Amino acid sequence: MSGDLVWVNGSFAGRIDPTDRGLMLGDGVFDTLVAFNRKPFAGERHLARLADHATAIGIALDPAKARAGWTAVLAEAKSDHVILRTTVTRGVTGRGLWPKTVPEPTIVVSATPWNKELVARPVRLVTSSIVRNAGSPTSRLKTIGYLDNIFAAREAAEKNADDALLLNAAGKVACTTIANVFALSGGRLLTPPTTDGVLAGIVRGLILEAASALGMEASERSLMPSDLFAADEVFLTNSVRLVSRARSLDEKPLGGRAPERVAGLLSVIAEKIRAEHSFVLEVA
Amino acid sequence: MSGDLVWVNGSFAGRIDPTDRGLMLGDGVFDTLVAFNRKPFAGERHLARLADHATAIGIALDPAKARAGWTAVLAEAKSDHVILRTTVTRGVTGRGLWPKTVPEPTIVVSATPWNKELVARPVRLVTSSIVRNAGSPTSRLKTIGYLDNIFAAREAAEKNADDALLLNAAGKVACTTIANVFALSGGRLLTPPTTDGVLAGIVRGLILEAASALGMEASERSLMPSDLFAADEVFLTNSVRLVSRARSLDEKPLGGRAPERVAGLLSVIAEKIRAEHSFVLEVA
Repeated sequence: MSGDLVWVNGSFAGRIDPTDRGLMLGDGVFDTLVAFNRKPFAGERHLARLADHATAIGIALDPAKARAGWTAVLAEAKSDHVILRTTVTRGVTGRGLWPKTVPEPTIVVSATPWNKELVARPVRLVTSSIVRNAGSPTSRLKTIGYLDNIFAAREAAEKNADDALLLNAAGKVACTTIANVFALSGGRLLTPPTTDGVLAGIVRGLILEAASALGMEASERSLMPSDLFAADEVFLTNSVRLVSRARSLDEKPLGGRAPERVAGLLSVIAEKIRAEHSFVLEVA
Repeated sequence: MSGDLVWVNGSFAGRIDPTDRGLMLGDGVFDTLVAFNRKPFAGERHLARLADHATAIGIALDPAKARAGWTAVLAEAKSDHVILRTTVTRGVTGRGLWPKTVPEPTIVVSATPWNKELVARPVRLVTSSIVRNAGSPTSRLKTIGYLDNIFAAREAAEKNADDALLLNAAGKVACTTIANVFALSGGRLLTPPTTDGVLAGIVRGLILEAASALGMEASERSLMPSDLFAADEVFLTNSVRLVSRARSLDEKPLGGRAPERVAGLLSVIAEKIRAEHSFVLEVA
């Protein structure tokens, strides 16, 4: 067993049925957030998205049950700052892909220590050979089915890179294995629309709002890899690492021409964390 | 808990770690077969494919361990004829998509009663809106990540059909949510190549061999939906239902011009089951 603190269906002693559809069929969704000082950062946004994505695949999640898991796990966590993962599966049914009955969902909440070293670390990217399938709604949902991303992460590891960039069938930038992608050019911020096969990350949303607050023009627009090379900066967002500059793609340099603008966007996030969590994010 | 007989990692009392990568990330592969008279049909082919697909995603499966699960479950099964499902996950690791350490795989074997009524039942198909992603190796592997197929199965259920046909991004026929697709025209048998986003089903392979034995020309070739409408017969293969004729696609009729040829192919499978399992498959 892993050493993680894990809450399952209302209890730290809860068990997973080995025929749970999450394990058998990847039939579920999840969320990852960071709790600073035992309080979920952007918790309401994360919970709303989790419930939305559950609904999208036909699971009726009671957000109060997930919240109860958060409360229990955060009270018992060994660290004040933890990565909180919430997994919701359709539960247990008989055979058949689309079940005739509606089972009780399975909810798993687990915590692992968060490490500030993860933030703002520049990232070397490689282009994955795996095509991101914009032709499926699962490309816009945070589902359990992460094997494409695992394949891409293996490619990155084999090429001694930090992360892999996934393109869709039209060759447009979708995301990395764990993050949304932004390009910053002449003070204008661009990120691919969800229709390109993109999950609407919570920090992606916060950054789009932060840009407005800083008077930057920000919009969703398809990006080709050539747009990344032409950008003043390319950066990645996710809920654990917040904001990281991408410094190369396939060993060719990216950005480096406006690091202060990326730092300014991260500062807006850091200020929100300070105000809401009394936690000061020190970034190198 | 489900009423299934379930063996996990060497024991009927084995438990699933709630942070198992199968449940968290869909990081695993599986196999489904039918055991007739408590003996796996085409068991060696199934086991070899399962080990191959595990290898493809970087899991070193010891086939002897999966076989031990089969033996244990088949000895205890309440029915002589069962659907045997084997699930292999990467197991438990720390966070990170591509793990730095190689954990012990998790193996789950479960049995549910097989029902002969599943065989040879004509199927009404609808075309799914979900695009099959031929641009990922996962489209050719039997991985846990079945949510695209679950979405497609929901579409079929909502349209009162039996199954959904998935096309790839080029509009070519890939498969249904649970089966391979064959078209039979003028005594010539065609099925899409795996490069179109197709899992090489065990019964698909047996049918290609049976065709040769019956003196039919059989080959892998891309198929468009129009090829299905032009065919004398369209039929589906999988390990539980064996062979089923498709009788309509989006409410337009398919095939019906050479049912005896489809029956002849199924007879080759039935004869193999009779010879190897002393089980007579009676097909209406």
